[in-house]
Amino acid sequence: MNPNSQPVEGAGEFNLIRRLHGLLNDYASPELCVDIGDDAAAYRTHGNRVQVVTTDALIEGYHFDLGFYTMEDIGYKAMAVNVSDIAAMNAKPRFATVALAIPGSLLIDQIECLYGGLRICADTHGIQIVGGDTTRSPVIMLSVTVIGEVEERDLVRRSGGKAGDLLCVTGTVGAAALGLHLLRRETESGPGAIKLAEEARSHVAHRHLRPEPRTDIVEDWKTRGVRPNAMIDISDGLAADVHQLCAASGCGAVVRRPALPVAEEMRIVAQALAADPLTYALGGGDDYELLFAASANTCRTLDPASYTVIGELTAERGLILLEDADGTVLPLSRAGHDHFASKD
Amino acid sequence: MNPNSQPVEGAGEFNLIRRLHGLLNDYASPELCVDIGDDAAAYRTHGNRVQVVTTDALIEGYHFDLGFYTMEDIGYKAMAVNVSDIAAMNAKPRFATVALAIPGSLLIDQIECLYGGLRICADTHGIQIVGGDTTRSPVIMLSVTVIGEVEERDLVRRSGGKAGDLLCVTGTVGAAALGLHLLRRETESGPGAIKLAEEARSHVAHRHLRPEPRTDIVEDWKTRGVRPNAMIDISDGLAADVHQLCAASGCGAVVRRPALPVAEEMRIVAQALAADPLTYALGGGDDYELLFAASANTCRTLDPASYTVIGELTAERGLILLEDADGTVLPLSRAGHDHFASKD
Repeated sequence: MNPNSQPVEGAGEFNLIRRLHGLLNDYASPELCVDIGDDAAAYRTHGNRVQVVTTDALIEGYHFDLGFYTMEDIGYKAMAVNVSDIAAMNAKPRFATVALAIPGSLLIDQIECLYGGLRICADTHGIQIVGGDTTRSPVIMLSVTVIGEVEERDLVRRSGGKAGDLLCVTGTVGAAALGLHLLRRETESGPGAIKLAEEARSHVAHRHLRPEPRTDIVEDWKTRGVRPNAMIDISDGLAADVHQLCAASGCGAVVRRPALPVAEEMRIVAQALAADPLTYALGGGDDYELLFAASANTCRTLDPASYTVIGELTAERGLILLEDADGTVLPLSRAGHDHFASKD
Repeated sequence: MNPNSQPVEGAGEFNLIRRLHGLLNDYASPELCVDIGDDAAAYRTHGNRVQVVTTDALIEGYHFDLGFYTMEDIGYKAMAVNVSDIAAMNAKPRFATVALAIPGSLLIDQIECLYGGLRICADTHGIQIVGGDTTRSPVIMLSVTVIGEVEERDLVRRSGGKAGDLLCVTGTVGAAALGLHLLRRETESGPGAIKLAEEARSHVAHRHLRPEPRTDIVEDWKTRGVRPNAMIDISDGLAADVHQLCAASGCGAVVRRPALPVAEEMRIVAQALAADPLTYALGGGDDYELLFAASANTCRTLDPASYTVIGELTAERGLILLEDADGTVLPLSRAGHDHFASKD
């Protein structure tokens, strides 16, 4: 029997955990003074930069479903959601720590896959995992902390938006939430029950399971020497995140429904599921794209392929409107509904 | 009905969590650029210092028992175990993030007490809580990350010990583990079944529930301009931590059983429970005192009341011995047993 196909339980836990931590980390950045294996990790900083720190946890049954998440997906996503928060500050992620709590019945192979997913995302974004804690729990819980760096003058808060700024998003929105809907429907109805082109299916599933935080955009802006006035990552849903950015910036916004960037693959899946793509685009969440406010002048210096203008910031604090193709304008709730009846 | 005596479930979760995060934080250190409420927190660093980071999680049923831990104890201890790791690097804790996962049935009052415990420990050690994530889970899980700072030349690793160094501990050891044993026995046998002087009882219970990380010692050393060669905090048990320090330093050690510092209150409780205090002192764990190795010259410059010499480091790598009052010397296992039969 392959020793890695054993449950953690009784597999010599102390040495196992030491070995697993070895998987997290096999190179050392020059700034690192003390790596995994001491009481804490230690690293040098650059004098003119600020440190940016965020923590998010994923819990089995609440944030992911073992029915359609692989262990690698779970590890990947736990890292990705934190990387996205660092990108939303216009910062570069550098170091991460991981607290993993697992049932003793989990196989060593499974835990290695989970660590593998953490590593894939960390390596993609140039992050070194410098600390880890592994303990037991009744369900899988994965809490990741990511620390990033940015020149203080380049830091972008949620609060810097001004009336007249263009409101923009990177990439497309809604596919992640529609992907979750599809994955759940497939689980309920069995394989093959929902007929879909594989390309469309895998696009929305991937958007949910393997979100790609936009550190590429942040790097591109740095190269161009520009920064937006305000920014937030789209995790709660576009409408909710517009509300949050406006609340922090003390302004309002108008969002134009026809401008919302939706992927063609997503439209195909929405049609197959008889779902409205724009409902998912506004209320869905889990996109991990960037929502930002920038002056028209700043926007002109950006790569036009990298973002879509979806509206603008307005002066009346807290008034968030959705404008339709025919010019109709209605309040937009946090949940993404465009009517008065919806509850915030 | 007091609205705080409601379960979290259905209490308007979004606003509740925002309010709770307000409890974490009501002052701002001058280094803080972005506080709780944005995608991530941001803080300035001092150019000549290194950043020290650690993460540890506490899980209900594994690390604490709701039978005898109050919510405040849980919050306090989750912070304390991380502060202790920062102290063990000879660093000063500065900032913390908290990922809390809770069952929806928990009362708002209870969560406020838990946050209160986090704050008590954070405030005691001058730590600002700069980030938080609150989610649902079937049991309480609390993952804390603490970031500290230290001048690079003052950083103390586990690996700096040299043969001939004195092996020392701060405070006393064993009471925390004996306290856990007592708390469990009391839970099983009902209140009042174990007759004990209140002072002795509360000493060992407090050592388990409210460990006091030794940032005071680290500050005192800084004032005196001294540092040990190697250090680790005593979390796994004195014997296990001697093994770890020696493994990292590439040496061995001899520990003198009669030298182990044990509190008088602990002896009283041990007698009442027919337990051997030295078994708890060597194998117990959860002490959160500092185990350090320093030259005799360095030790002479320390406050003699602040530490006890328990033995010394020796040249033979991996040979950890326990010497008895009569001069008998036997190998000391990680688990704290002093015989060959014990399994590492």
